[in-house]
Amino acid sequence: MAGVFITFEGGDGSGKTTQIRLLQKWLSDNGHTVVVTREPGGTDLGNELRDIILHSTGFIAPRAEALLYAADRSHHIHTLVRPALERGDVVVQDRYFDSSVAYQGAGRVLDATEVRELSLWATERLMPHLTILLDVPADVAKARQLGDERRFDRLEAEAQDFHERVRESYLALAEAEPDRFLVLDGTVSVESIHEAITTRVSDVVG
Amino acid sequence: MAGVFITFEGGDGSGKTTQIRLLQKWLSDNGHTVVVTREPGGTDLGNELRDIILHSTGFIAPRAEALLYAADRSHHIHTLVRPALERGDVVVQDRYFDSSVAYQGAGRVLDATEVRELSLWATERLMPHLTILLDVPADVAKARQLGDERRFDRLEAEAQDFHERVRESYLALAEAEPDRFLVLDGTVSVESIHEAITTRVSDVVG
Repeated sequence: MAGVFITFEGGDGSGKTTQIRLLQKWLSDNGHTVVVTREPGGTDLGNELRDIILHSTGFIAPRAEALLYAADRSHHIHTLVRPALERGDVVVQDRYFDSSVAYQGAGRVLDATEVRELSLWATERLMPHLTILLDVPADVAKARQLGDERRFDRLEAEAQDFHERVRESYLALAEAEPDRFLVLDGTVSVESIHEAITTRVSDVVG
Repeated sequence: MAGVFITFEGGDGSGKTTQIRLLQKWLSDNGHTVVVTREPGGTDLGNELRDIILHSTGFIAPRAEALLYAADRSHHIHTLVRPALERGDVVVQDRYFDSSVAYQGAGRVLDATEVRELSLWATERLMPHLTILLDVPADVAKARQLGDERRFDRLEAEAQDFHERVRESYLALAEAEPDRFLVLDGTVSVESIHEAITTRVSDVVG
């Protein structure tokens, strides 16, 4: 497979969207063909499933939800990511299976190892060459999302607690695979994060 | 779990719908509370997924399709079948994981053992107390579906070949679990099949 597969991970409000946009431009400026995509979504089927998962008003059984994410992932990797990699493109993807593992690890409903195995089956074990984790404490992420620093009520405190557990799960995943992960402090300036990313990506894209 | 879980298997045209209807009436007449359901479908989420799987105009990656069936199955078992069994009802279901295994075994795209394991993960290993396989040769099933005995063209011959492979897969599954399966010749009269079913179901429902 000639291409390079780079994934971005981190909680909502960690700055993934901004950094992906900057990396896309940098890669293009350096002569690479770039495909930017995301999960869930990224294909027609994926968008239908994304609608079901994110906008369903009814209860979805936990394993059913994990299977829907895996179905989206399977179709997305098979029809969009693998063909791009075979063409030699650089694929930059917003969230991949580490998201499923970290969120399940934080939610503690399903076994994280089983969820990982499900994703690997779904994708025929396609591993990213590089995974960039933007690490941001819950209060910073929340403030970014709200655009202010207002006080949190009880539900927001629970959400913050959940964010911290997701963050810990992500950091544990990164520690387990130090060669694949680049962990960056997401609280420093956009420019310095971008610079750290391009320094590492330069090595990966050759 | 107080209830009884009975599944029906067999190709299209094997007579499952007719026999399920007759069994439902017989169980009701004998004082049982019966839930009749089917896969794919059976729940709101399931019907959405059924629409995607059966009516999608685009290509669906094979593993994605297997995962969608598993998601439907997971939700269906979790939200409808298990609660009914916990109430002590008799659940009669049109198709369960043996369908996935038999059709994958016949299509030879995915590994049948992996597909079985996926379903068992999805359902937290809920096994039927009894699985009734209605065994019908391809030509009989086809004639029933068409309502006549017209000659088959090439595509129909391929479909027939596929039906025979599904049938062989089903028979192999039944052979591997003789205690769970009741295999019946689906070409004899509706009444005699119904009688064979109720004889066995009497033992199972006590």
